[in-house]
Amino acid sequence: MPHYTPPVKDQQFLLHEIFKISESDVPGYEELDRDFTSAVLEEAGKIASNVLQPLNTVGDTEGCTLENGVVRTPTGFKEAWDEMAAGGWMGLDASTEFGGQGMPYILGTATGELFSSANMAFQMYVGLSHGAASALAVHGSDEQKSTYLPKIYSGEWSGTMNLTEPHCGTDLGLMRTKAEPQDDGSYKVSGQKIWISGGENDLSQNIVHLVLAKIPDGPEGVKGISLFVVPKFIPNEDGTLGERNSLSCGGLEEKMGIHGNSTCVMNYDGATGWLVGDMHKGMRAMFTMMNEARLSVALQGYCQGEVAYQNALAFAQDRLQGRDVTGVKNPDGPADPIIVHPDVRRNLMDQKSITEGGRALVYWGAEMIDRSHRANDEEAEAMVSLLIPVMKGFLTDKGFETTVLAQQTLGGSGFTKEWGLEQFVRDARIAMIYEGTNGIQSLDLVGRKLPQNGGKTVMAFIELVKTFIKENEDNEALKEGFLEPLKAASKDLQAAGMYFMQEGMTNPNNALSGSYDFMHLFGHVCLGLMWARMGKAAQEALDGGAEDKEFYETKIATGRYYMARQLPMTTAHLARIQSGGDTVMALDAANF
Amino acid sequence: MPHYTPPVKDQQFLLHEIFKISESDVPGYEELDRDFTSAVLEEAGKIASNVLQPLNTVGDTEGCTLENGVVRTPTGFKEAWDEMAAGGWMGLDASTEFGGQGMPYILGTATGELFSSANMAFQMYVGLSHGAASALAVHGSDEQKSTYLPKIYSGEWSGTMNLTEPHCGTDLGLMRTKAEPQDDGSYKVSGQKIWISGGENDLSQNIVHLVLAKIPDGPEGVKGISLFVVPKFIPNEDGTLGERNSLSCGGLEEKMGIHGNSTCVMNYDGATGWLVGDMHKGMRAMFTMMNEARLSVALQGYCQGEVAYQNALAFAQDRLQGRDVTGVKNPDGPADPIIVHPDVRRNLMDQKSITEGGRALVYWGAEMIDRSHRANDEEAEAMVSLLIPVMKGFLTDKGFETTVLAQQTLGGSGFTKEWGLEQFVRDARIAMIYEGTNGIQSLDLVGRKLPQNGGKTVMAFIELVKTFIKENEDNEALKEGFLEPLKAASKDLQAAGMYFMQEGMTNPNNALSGSYDFMHLFGHVCLGLMWARMGKAAQEALDGGAEDKEFYETKIATGRYYMARQLPMTTAHLARIQSGGDTVMALDAANF
Repeated sequence: MPHYTPPVKDQQFLLHEIFKISESDVPGYEELDRDFTSAVLEEAGKIASNVLQPLNTVGDTEGCTLENGVVRTPTGFKEAWDEMAAGGWMGLDASTEFGGQGMPYILGTATGELFSSANMAFQMYVGLSHGAASALAVHGSDEQKSTYLPKIYSGEWSGTMNLTEPHCGTDLGLMRTKAEPQDDGSYKVSGQKIWISGGENDLSQNIVHLVLAKIPDGPEGVKGISLFVVPKFIPNEDGTLGERNSLSCGGLEEKMGIHGNSTCVMNYDGATGWLVGDMHKGMRAMFTMMNEARLSVALQGYCQGEVAYQNALAFAQDRLQGRDVTGVKNPDGPADPIIVHPDVRRNLMDQKSITEGGRALVYWGAEMIDRSHRANDEEAEAMVSLLIPVMKGFLTDKGFETTVLAQQTLGGSGFTKEWGLEQFVRDARIAMIYEGTNGIQSLDLVGRKLPQNGGKTVMAFIELVKTFIKENEDNEALKEGFLEPLKAASKDLQAAGMYFMQEGMTNPNNALSGSYDFMHLFGHVCLGLMWARMGKAAQEALDGGAEDKEFYETKIATGRYYMARQLPMTTAHLARIQSGGDTVMALDAANF
Repeated sequence: MPHYTPPVKDQQFLLHEIFKISESDVPGYEELDRDFTSAVLEEAGKIASNVLQPLNTVGDTEGCTLENGVVRTPTGFKEAWDEMAAGGWMGLDASTEFGGQGMPYILGTATGELFSSANMAFQMYVGLSHGAASALAVHGSDEQKSTYLPKIYSGEWSGTMNLTEPHCGTDLGLMRTKAEPQDDGSYKVSGQKIWISGGENDLSQNIVHLVLAKIPDGPEGVKGISLFVVPKFIPNEDGTLGERNSLSCGGLEEKMGIHGNSTCVMNYDGATGWLVGDMHKGMRAMFTMMNEARLSVALQGYCQGEVAYQNALAFAQDRLQGRDVTGVKNPDGPADPIIVHPDVRRNLMDQKSITEGGRALVYWGAEMIDRSHRANDEEAEAMVSLLIPVMKGFLTDKGFETTVLAQQTLGGSGFTKEWGLEQFVRDARIAMIYEGTNGIQSLDLVGRKLPQNGGKTVMAFIELVKTFIKENEDNEALKEGFLEPLKAASKDLQAAGMYFMQEGMTNPNNALSGSYDFMHLFGHVCLGLMWARMGKAAQEALDGGAEDKEFYETKIATGRYYMARQLPMTTAHLARIQSGGDTVMALDAANF
């Protein structure tokens, strides 16, 4: 059975020594001192490891069942949901006006990490509900907000997002679900939506579906899409449940992983719904939530990596096979623990350096989202929008890779269900696909984000890296291990950026053929920057005589590993990018 | 439901235009003319796509069951086994003396590819039986050969390999299973073996277990291991089944994939067995079969890649989403097929170029094994021994990656069971683990194979690449697209080889920390060489006025893609290798 230990110390290091949140000028951060965040994280950690983690295997084994339109979630999920609700975790970072705790998003992200590492399939019910509430909080009418938000934040009701249809996933312009206006101002929604996470479940009393649909005679394509709220039970004015709406779960998807989450086919048969936000502006409503939604998937990537790494590490410290080539380490045992072997180390260090770097990057993203929302900082908004596809695409690819590496640490045991590693691999896989496939993320990056503001934001990112290097150029402790590799990698990023600017206009296929590699190149530079910042902070702590020497030395060593062994990937990505689109597009579609 | 089309044309291209087998001086190859191999491959292809492929999903869904010691394989597996047996496929490349067809190993490899792509879990029963027979054919007594081989080649009996025990997988020196000599020359074998593929099954009348065990009072560690044949039913002199032996299946492993194959815990309770080969030389007996065994796993890697690619391609040609950025391609439809998009192309071309390159490398390996066995060519034996860990490690990693890429082509559909891609991912995963984990392959490469003959063989490989480049330096068609990238990559290989030779003696951790990257670097150069040879042959065919122009042009375009987009990975691997072991080994085992 796998285990999970909340990495609160690592989280605290990021919050207080890298992002120094309690000293920050972001409104709301002033309350987040070390003791406070420690208490919150320890509490969330207990739920994660004591309540959610033990249900992770249960969820995978039992899965969800559909009988007579009712979806049954796995044993224990309902009790866990109620415990999360009672603890106020559903609305931790939601407005106090509607029953939330009013905490900043970065704290919701840090606690969300713990829940997601412990039980990704379960946390999806919470996360999607949170996402639906966020959309209503921004775009809903006052009445919609007061009707739905308190119920979702209290965990009484859950929420879903309905975008995909059988014939259209990425290309939402092809959508067929329609919403016909009624005399009373409501709409009748009809159509079929697929892959609706938590679309039907037995955790909550009501399910608040947010549904994209087209109002007849509206504009063609994506410009004719509107957003609707379509509750399973239509709420009475007093908040009690009224009439059952004409919608139902038509089936559950059988899938590779996240079995504990119900992935539903949802049928809307003239269901009553109400417009959310402006008519035909449904895509815009989606887009304003996209940064948060995609950041939470980026988080899922390194979260599965984290729990997989923890279990791989424990195995490597325990399993005895072979002897250290430089001298026996466990003379009293029949063999040495496999962690002595360099190739096992290489494997573990890849996992560790990616996971901890990924966490730093996601927290930075959360900090920028707070800065943009709470301080109306447009530069932070632009920067996080630029980096979101990198975070989502790169970190979910790398998170999946990490689970595969961790599985490999266990050898044959990694392939068995008994050890649980294979579940992490299967669960992590979805994060590369949903919320916009990683290919789509790379197109968003190169086609939309890179040219935004005339390239100003990407220049600002590169400037940020340069400034860091310049400010620390006299720091001998950082120079060789951190600054030089970061400089080299950021030069590759600049060269790639230049290539896209030159090619983007004249030969779009050249630019688009390199989009995926650019996303990875960019991701490596981001993690390089994060590690350089962490290396610097750790060095400062050591210079300042910090007590926990081993913690900071380990951070520095892990960072140096990343810089030496991961960052050189930028050269290969640059070479792929600069090879252009000719070899990619050479074949006729029929000659593959 | 996934489909599979046997790639006979690609196979024929390799056999007759790259390896030119019917013109070869390897004894037995003279019969393998184009028509003959075509007939054999077409016939095998029919069984693969009509019989085995339809059972692939069945095997995954039903899995195997154990009741009262009896293992039931999935519906249809027994009938398929009988059909394979009746067609003579079990002993295609086995000696005619014992009922085999006497064909060269390369033909068994090519037909094995078809079966393995169609149904990996099923083909494992055939492959393991073949492996057990091969060990008996080389090391068994005349009596053992005449008793067991005809029965295995006819499919009446199956075979297994028993190495792993709960506490020892990689480090076989820790083995506890013991074999006590009896007065009649037999042994009583006692102990528990795990992860025994096909250890119990209902396909065959008898199961021939080859078991590694220690004879009491023998040498310590791996030097005290002997090999035994331990049949489920002890054969009578006339070949009929006699007494039931004291061995049983104690459980089936629940695992991530290859559910159609029974992975058994095998308990030997004083079971009667007979020594195979010399006492205490069991490991040597294993080693002589290792090249074939590991090549067959290398094959599984690209085989799952091949079938996954075929299904991804069909989806990409069919699924309509978005429009070609350079101009609408499907004006009568609501959108263009996704194969028009550069990032989908990039994904497909990675899959295609890795798979076809991998096939070429494995066939080259099979050719060298034939050359070594049939022509006693020691240089071929040395070269294939050097390359086997590269083929196994690199091609199974890349094969798995290919299935993941293919799954990604389908977006959300790739995650569902319905489309079958996720099964290919789960099945392919095991090939990176068994028959020596890929980490172990990299140690075998750097620690054993690289220094063999004082480095002569690796020099011979580099010479082979250089000679190819030199012989074709005036070939303008090959120069830029093939020869220059190959030259650059082989320089990286040389630099890495140099690094290992310098560090290997003085600082083994420096060498071992780079072993995995070296395996991949080497693999890329191998595939680069294969693609250069294929590019050359295709160009010659075009210059000679070949009819099937598109086939050869596609080969050239795919090769150019590999050289431009995959081969640059060698620089990143070299950088990782040259960064040495310091960052890898920096942490104390307790500080992870």
